[in-house]
Amino acid sequence: MTYPFPDDSLTLHTDKYQINMVETYWRDNIHNRKAVFEAYFRKLPFSNGYAVFAGLERVVRYLEQFRFSDSDLDYLKEDGYSDEFLAYLKGLSFTGTLASMREGELVFPNEPILRVEAPLAEAQLIETALLNIINYQTLIATKASRVKQVTGNALTMEFGTRRAQEMDAAIWGARAAYVGGFESTSNVRAGKLFGIPTVGTHAHAMVQAYSDDYTAFRKYAETHTDCVFLVDTYDTLKSGVPAAIRVASEMGDRISFKGIRLDSGDLAYLSKEARKLLDEAGFTDAKIYATNDLDEATILNLKMQGARIDVWGIGTKLITAYDQPALGAVYKLIAIEDENGKMKDTIKISANPEKITTPGLKRVYRIINKGSGKSEGDYIALAHERPQDEEHLKMFHPVHTYIAKFVANFEARELHKPIFESGKLVYELPPIQQIQSFARDNLNQLWDEYKRTLNAEEYPVDLSQECWNNKMAMIEEVKKKVVQKK
Amino acid sequence: MTYPFPDDSLTLHTDKYQINMVETYWRDNIHNRKAVFEAYFRKLPFSNGYAVFAGLERVVRYLEQFRFSDSDLDYLKEDGYSDEFLAYLKGLSFTGTLASMREGELVFPNEPILRVEAPLAEAQLIETALLNIINYQTLIATKASRVKQVTGNALTMEFGTRRAQEMDAAIWGARAAYVGGFESTSNVRAGKLFGIPTVGTHAHAMVQAYSDDYTAFRKYAETHTDCVFLVDTYDTLKSGVPAAIRVASEMGDRISFKGIRLDSGDLAYLSKEARKLLDEAGFTDAKIYATNDLDEATILNLKMQGARIDVWGIGTKLITAYDQPALGAVYKLIAIEDENGKMKDTIKISANPEKITTPGLKRVYRIINKGSGKSEGDYIALAHERPQDEEHLKMFHPVHTYIAKFVANFEARELHKPIFESGKLVYELPPIQQIQSFARDNLNQLWDEYKRTLNAEEYPVDLSQECWNNKMAMIEEVKKKVVQKK
Repeated sequence: MTYPFPDDSLTLHTDKYQINMVETYWRDNIHNRKAVFEAYFRKLPFSNGYAVFAGLERVVRYLEQFRFSDSDLDYLKEDGYSDEFLAYLKGLSFTGTLASMREGELVFPNEPILRVEAPLAEAQLIETALLNIINYQTLIATKASRVKQVTGNALTMEFGTRRAQEMDAAIWGARAAYVGGFESTSNVRAGKLFGIPTVGTHAHAMVQAYSDDYTAFRKYAETHTDCVFLVDTYDTLKSGVPAAIRVASEMGDRISFKGIRLDSGDLAYLSKEARKLLDEAGFTDAKIYATNDLDEATILNLKMQGARIDVWGIGTKLITAYDQPALGAVYKLIAIEDENGKMKDTIKISANPEKITTPGLKRVYRIINKGSGKSEGDYIALAHERPQDEEHLKMFHPVHTYIAKFVANFEARELHKPIFESGKLVYELPPIQQIQSFARDNLNQLWDEYKRTLNAEEYPVDLSQECWNNKMAMIEEVKKKVVQKK
Repeated sequence: MTYPFPDDSLTLHTDKYQINMVETYWRDNIHNRKAVFEAYFRKLPFSNGYAVFAGLERVVRYLEQFRFSDSDLDYLKEDGYSDEFLAYLKGLSFTGTLASMREGELVFPNEPILRVEAPLAEAQLIETALLNIINYQTLIATKASRVKQVTGNALTMEFGTRRAQEMDAAIWGARAAYVGGFESTSNVRAGKLFGIPTVGTHAHAMVQAYSDDYTAFRKYAETHTDCVFLVDTYDTLKSGVPAAIRVASEMGDRISFKGIRLDSGDLAYLSKEARKLLDEAGFTDAKIYATNDLDEATILNLKMQGARIDVWGIGTKLITAYDQPALGAVYKLIAIEDENGKMKDTIKISANPEKITTPGLKRVYRIINKGSGKSEGDYIALAHERPQDEEHLKMFHPVHTYIAKFVANFEARELHKPIFESGKLVYELPPIQQIQSFARDNLNQLWDEYKRTLNAEEYPVDLSQECWNNKMAMIEEVKKKVVQKK
């Protein structure tokens, strides 16, 4: 079995309907009309009170390289597309404008994470990959941040590669976990590519290869300075922990005995007993690491039971976002150039009310109370509005409009940054450490009630009066059109 | 932000502990001892009655290219590894032997999917990537097969890219869905790379770009022969379906009107009403396509309600294996060469009984009843045993040993094929269509009670008497050692 086409481009990483729509636009000569799309999600994952945006770096790399390769075009030709259409595709690259939140920004339902303004054909072709990237990475950054709310200052490590949904998920998930506050990953390739600290000592297989705990730990200690011994291959308290203590005693200053790792059994009980054994032997600084299908709920439970665990390794439940493995961000057309070159707003109506889009080019502001330093909510206004100039800003719930407040003495921080302008990258991607601390700073601006892992309060995401009026007017308009047609 | 290291190799796609263990083995000069590892999972996903193995092709490609690149070694050097150790790593490639089930094979808990016999260091380094690949792909092939049990002969399409867990999951998931019986995917790159049929017509955005259903459908029809119109952008029954019918009538033989797609609202009700409208207009051959967070449970429900849906598009719930997004296959050392060059069995004991490994080099047989043509169960024997020569094969449950039966007039089909021998690829990867039909044939050999999507019977996976005795003896041995040590 040989493959006719090399994997030399990500440009066909799209849904086929995008290509078929572009074919229609091109034949109808509307492919270069300027279109504006926004990406947003409708519901927070895990019933969390906030999400942490991640994925921009991958989006930037993808857009920079957006070109159909020769093999892409050969494949499409074989699939039946015409030579003239393929000649058009061959010339395409991303020439549009991208405004986006930065990675590590907190993001809430129904507010645009990013906005693409580009020729209709380009904006359409990139949709699928953009969503694929930001949906997953934002999901994992959010899950990681949620776990970090529970582990607090304790070291928390990403260990999920073997259970990740294929290879990209493992490395970009490790990166997203770092954005969300994790300190390190076990995935060495993620360390190489993204500069994330990597960690890991040994597995059960090494203990089996040496037949017993003591020999294995001793061999490891003779060949490494930093030692964390995995103690549950045969029997944690009878064999593993005593062997670790014996090796640590024998090796003395020649190693740095970091601690032991528990990977099965009753982690609460075993950690308490292991702690006693370590302390009795004088290794009060040795830490207890725990792994084994942990997530924020099990960690909270273990803490409640007084488990003596110092360091957490999180695998499956984080890297797959086990309890909700997909974020549903969508990408919707909100304005398009008409035949006279004028931009007009668009809307999508739906039988499901939450699926109705908000038309028009908008900006998103975080309203920070200058007194408390905390955010009062997010405020979405049409592009020409200047909420930062208002003395008293009226904020009201876009569905339950009676829920309203006036805010004074505030700063309105615009959340979108220019990333591409007319196809040119105008944004410098920050180092990953800076993204992590940006996320941490953003969380500090958030009141605690939005950071609970259970029953978090709903954070206000409000429309300006003008934006809200515009939406309502368009809904009415479409309803009239549908009725007239009957 | 520039990156010092290019993404030019998958060899560091491993957990750091693998590299640290290999360092110990190498310094202790046991790195070339022959080791035998098996990969298997302990529990079927989704409470399904079987799993469908997928991932071998990706494993083969990975092993063929297993070499540390210069940038891999540069990174490891920066991370503190010594020059002499890196010089050793530089020379590594996969020189071992791999036996594996073929893709499309049905696989059950606690039976080895694949077996690696290789120098200890190599076998250890490849663990993480192997599990990462087979866990995900097997999970999705299984989920797809489960959905296909419910959709039956109806066309079933994979539409999940935008919700997949990053890009690799989208394309390898599309491939796994095809292995599991899906007819096509929307992901064009998956079509290009794997030869899977691709499908897709248009999205809501096209209807919005043209402002109304009729104009959009008409434009699409003027530029494409095969037409499926998405009818729910504004109002399915009042606007979408009538517009589709109008365009189909106007275009007549100039297009092939395949049907309409419903993507929101009450799919049961809307499909029945849409069917009436289509039939009244004479389009009795036009099909109704449905999408919108479907899975095997919602499809079963829609069918029960008499929904008139002909073609199913499955996204999120399939591509993320939403209700159980990870398969827990593990990779365990079952034998290793000792200092005298003799192979000795190994075991891993655990406080969790199901985590105890089964020692020794084993073969897996599917026991096919020659009378019925159906499988009686799987039978795991030590390598030297010849169950195919037995006249009456005793099969007994490895935990509840009183559950036993004798089988006569059977064929014992060995499930593992040689893939690599001493580092050389000896297996020809079959075309994807052949894998799909292999999976279908395998399902035909399975009794219906294992194919139910709810409360499936437990398929027998039994150990030979000798294999079982060997395991029990080793458990006793380890327990004695632990007690003596106290």
